[in-house]
Amino acid sequence: MDDSEKNSVTIVKPSTIRVVEESKPLKLSCGKCIAPVDVTYETLGQLNDNRDNAILICHALSGDAHVAGKHHPDSKKLGWWDSMVGPGKAIDTNKYFVICSNILGGCSGTTGPLSINPETNVPFGLDFPMITISDMVKVQKLLLEKIGVKKLLAVIGGSMGGMQTLQWSIEYPDFLQSVIAIATTTNLNPQSIAFDAVGRSAILSDPNFNTGQYHDDCPPDIGLSIARMIGHITYLSEEGMREKFGRQLRDSKKYSYDFDSEFTVETYLDYQSQLFVERFDANSYLYITKAMDYFDLEKDYGSLTKAFEKSSCRFLIASFTSDWLFTPAQGKKIAKTLTASGKDASFCNIDSPYGHDAFLLETETLGKFIAEFLEATHKPKEKIQVSSRVNTGKQILSKFQRAQRTRVDYEIISSLIKPGSKVLDTGCGDGELLSRLIADKNIKAEGIECQQDLVLECIKRRLPIIQHDIEQLLPNHADKSFDYVILSQTVQALNHPKKVFEELLRLGKKVIVSFPNFASWSCRWQLFFLGKAPVTKGLPFTWYNSPNVHFLSLKDFECFCKKMNVTIEKKIPLIKTSVSPVKILPNLFAEQAIYVTSKD
Amino acid sequence: MDDSEKNSVTIVKPSTIRVVEESKPLKLSCGKCIAPVDVTYETLGQLNDNRDNAILICHALSGDAHVAGKHHPDSKKLGWWDSMVGPGKAIDTNKYFVICSNILGGCSGTTGPLSINPETNVPFGLDFPMITISDMVKVQKLLLEKIGVKKLLAVIGGSMGGMQTLQWSIEYPDFLQSVIAIATTTNLNPQSIAFDAVGRSAILSDPNFNTGQYHDDCPPDIGLSIARMIGHITYLSEEGMREKFGRQLRDSKKYSYDFDSEFTVETYLDYQSQLFVERFDANSYLYITKAMDYFDLEKDYGSLTKAFEKSSCRFLIASFTSDWLFTPAQGKKIAKTLTASGKDASFCNIDSPYGHDAFLLETETLGKFIAEFLEATHKPKEKIQVSSRVNTGKQILSKFQRAQRTRVDYEIISSLIKPGSKVLDTGCGDGELLSRLIADKNIKAEGIECQQDLVLECIKRRLPIIQHDIEQLLPNHADKSFDYVILSQTVQALNHPKKVFEELLRLGKKVIVSFPNFASWSCRWQLFFLGKAPVTKGLPFTWYNSPNVHFLSLKDFECFCKKMNVTIEKKIPLIKTSVSPVKILPNLFAEQAIYVTSKD
Repeated sequence: MDDSEKNSVTIVKPSTIRVVEESKPLKLSCGKCIAPVDVTYETLGQLNDNRDNAILICHALSGDAHVAGKHHPDSKKLGWWDSMVGPGKAIDTNKYFVICSNILGGCSGTTGPLSINPETNVPFGLDFPMITISDMVKVQKLLLEKIGVKKLLAVIGGSMGGMQTLQWSIEYPDFLQSVIAIATTTNLNPQSIAFDAVGRSAILSDPNFNTGQYHDDCPPDIGLSIARMIGHITYLSEEGMREKFGRQLRDSKKYSYDFDSEFTVETYLDYQSQLFVERFDANSYLYITKAMDYFDLEKDYGSLTKAFEKSSCRFLIASFTSDWLFTPAQGKKIAKTLTASGKDASFCNIDSPYGHDAFLLETETLGKFIAEFLEATHKPKEKIQVSSRVNTGKQILSKFQRAQRTRVDYEIISSLIKPGSKVLDTGCGDGELLSRLIADKNIKAEGIECQQDLVLECIKRRLPIIQHDIEQLLPNHADKSFDYVILSQTVQALNHPKKVFEELLRLGKKVIVSFPNFASWSCRWQLFFLGKAPVTKGLPFTWYNSPNVHFLSLKDFECFCKKMNVTIEKKIPLIKTSVSPVKILPNLFAEQAIYVTSKD
Repeated sequence: MDDSEKNSVTIVKPSTIRVVEESKPLKLSCGKCIAPVDVTYETLGQLNDNRDNAILICHALSGDAHVAGKHHPDSKKLGWWDSMVGPGKAIDTNKYFVICSNILGGCSGTTGPLSINPETNVPFGLDFPMITISDMVKVQKLLLEKIGVKKLLAVIGGSMGGMQTLQWSIEYPDFLQSVIAIATTTNLNPQSIAFDAVGRSAILSDPNFNTGQYHDDCPPDIGLSIARMIGHITYLSEEGMREKFGRQLRDSKKYSYDFDSEFTVETYLDYQSQLFVERFDANSYLYITKAMDYFDLEKDYGSLTKAFEKSSCRFLIASFTSDWLFTPAQGKKIAKTLTASGKDASFCNIDSPYGHDAFLLETETLGKFIAEFLEATHKPKEKIQVSSRVNTGKQILSKFQRAQRTRVDYEIISSLIKPGSKVLDTGCGDGELLSRLIADKNIKAEGIECQQDLVLECIKRRLPIIQHDIEQLLPNHADKSFDYVILSQTVQALNHPKKVFEELLRLGKKVIVSFPNFASWSCRWQLFFLGKAPVTKGLPFTWYNSPNVHFLSLKDFECFCKKMNVTIEKKIPLIKTSVSPVKILPNLFAEQAIYVTSKD
């Protein structure tokens, strides 16, 4: 694909279809029924012959069905996620068939408070029944059935769209192969509920609101615009706002000493909220924010673990470092809960200054994660494993990682692991070891890695990978969740090796630890005769730039195990590139060692 | 003082006094004039015979003159900072004479938009001139002159009150001995301006607002209550709200499926905003938030350094870890700028989950800092230095700090420093070394320490101390700002020793470094013959729990200096408690070493 095609614009046409007939009302979560229900949707790309390339995209609070492309060649308005969706883009419409529909309760074609209430023949307004995320998903499912989609390769959504994707995995586990949930949560925190509530107060108390029965020429624009301004602030980050606006004034260096908007940030909010009220309905805003407030998988299902009990798809959960509305902690919690129940889930926390809006703006980075995850999900498993052995991803490893990863212990660790085991590799880098173990031993793999680019490499290899600092614990995972936990060439770089080691012994039936031997012959020699901090092949750093922060010998490690009542099941002292263990004076001659340990 | 007295309540009476006569209008920052100006104020305690114990407290956006005590014995309403101000409390009215006045533009007695406009004989409303923080401070100064206070021991304030304290130090440098600026900033960031702007929009667009000429029976309560709710959310922290409200519902476990407030956080905001509109004036809210938005010391004076050029008082800047409205970074920036210009400034970042509201809630911790800072400012210097030699504060030092601090190098470092020098001690702990150097060498001291309790010890010793991680830099400080920079027994515990050492060489004409020798005889012996990571008196930790993360010998350090073109001016290898340098084979026999280094 050349650039001209990549930049070409697809012309899309919205369609509206009745998914609930007047005669067969749809029962909603609130207990009320609704009929009829019409849904407006758009599609891009083609369903392939295998019918396995359909992707549903769920929009957020202020979105609609117009996800990408243009309605007319001479229109200036592109779809809300045009940067991500289209021919040759991350969600590649040359490969995938993309569907996006306006949600139930929305105001862009799908049945919502603006629709005519058949009982009164005027718009529903506040007579519209309360809706939930689950209701939105039900309607999406009805749409897909109507248009002949029987299976989804993926459901993708950010923010409230992410809530829908999670609900999809719970309600229709057999219908979808994967979920990509971006900048989302399983329930709003009280801060977000509070912001929503203030926005609703502004709308409800607007004198034009008229208990929801306002007219086109006199809608509660002021209330809606205040609600939107509050929302908009929460979509940005403090850092992002400082970069974008600073304390800049609109048109002079002097203060105007009146109450007109004069800081650029004020005029920006005025402008954005004006655009919003021109295209959005205040009642829809009320209903949709309430649906978000109500969304609470913990409450609905008793616990998050129970909520996802039947989910069987692959998950990619993505968050953004500066998002304070749907925080990285909330995203990580979803992924941790899923992996703790043995689900195939990955988590990445993308470094971005754009706050919650990053899900619309970080096209390049997020796009890579989405594209690779879709690709790995779509292509046959076998192909991925083969390719993962060829592409070791080493080109992106730093000196430190190379020092860790170009090592003989891969082979030996592999020989220690029984086929079909469940294995956690902590600090798994680009996933080379896990990929090998999957290919050679058919293990069930899980990885932890803190670096974004390495996490992406793991996604490419179809590995379940959590972007996570291993110094933090995994409290959701049950005791002895894994047959093996691997801590390879990392213990010496941990700030709190004892705490981490204890946690790994809790998680794994066996913990395989490898580290460079600080009492190797050449280390001893250097300190003793040269009086300098040793620099060796296994410990290649000078004292001031070393990522290694705790030095230990075989003897140190053994004393430590004894003190902690840890059983050493196997000890493999090694020299250089040889896979044969050192037999004589290992603490003196071994350059590194691998231990298999366990604790009941 | 016994508890009964501590808990007793002072009865205070508000007074109102005319500080600007009708005949002599006050010129405001906006260029307009105002007259007359009346100020409502309250006082607690007594001005002493030396007239050196007066403290002005500046209130925040929603505060008033009623800072502590009660107006009537049977009233239930205590002043807004009663927990902090009173007999035996942190701001002890047995010792100090406390004055608090309602700000210009306020609505609790002082002239503001509610006052009658002499030109129209109706309340000013929006005809009130725009006011600034500087105008508020001018009026406070006029008040103090009227009531015969000629000098202030301290000006104390949080949030917008903190802005006033900073303005005080700039406009009336000779009038005050110290400033305690809490949870404040030198200018609002665009996020905070945005929140203020949305609040003002809500008021201005309330149909009852009537261009500010509303009446008592029909004020713009809805707009003001929305503004207050937005503000209130920003005063709390996400963490604090989760603890306080979670996702709890008001009175049932089931959702009500309507638009009434049902989450506890919603009803809390409703209630709080209701209380607020009953006591506050919407026009005042507009004027005061605008004054906060306009406050910008950088803009007003060209730079922060220039702003504080004439300030000569002591500063204590306090922030709170979870405050996202007036962030710790903003507070630290003030302190760093001040110390970079050689001012006597300290900074503490108090650990709290309460967000911006912590300045009203963290009474105990904040109270200690305030009380000790006031005490140290109030009592004669000599007394403090004597007492600091007696109280070494060691009881609160951890094992690591004791390992660092019970050391002979104090005495030797002292011998290396010329009298009258300017000295920065990085990682200064409880300030013992700096206190000794002040007593013995009359140095100008500055300290950096990251632990809150040790920072408090330094405040007690009247040391300028910045709570700061020395791994972060001090970019505001000019090159060679100090005659000596001390990095005592810390280099081995740094994550980035090279970066830090380079920065210290930039800051100091000479850098004095001391560290334990990793190639001492006993270290070498242990690794060589025992094959274990050494544990010695100077390096007393086992490998897995050591705070030391980089190990170096004298030789390592010397190679490092050579590589970095650093001149070693003096080298003092030491054994145990002896102050005589090791002469033979120092890299083998010395247990620690002190180096004096420099780099042009």
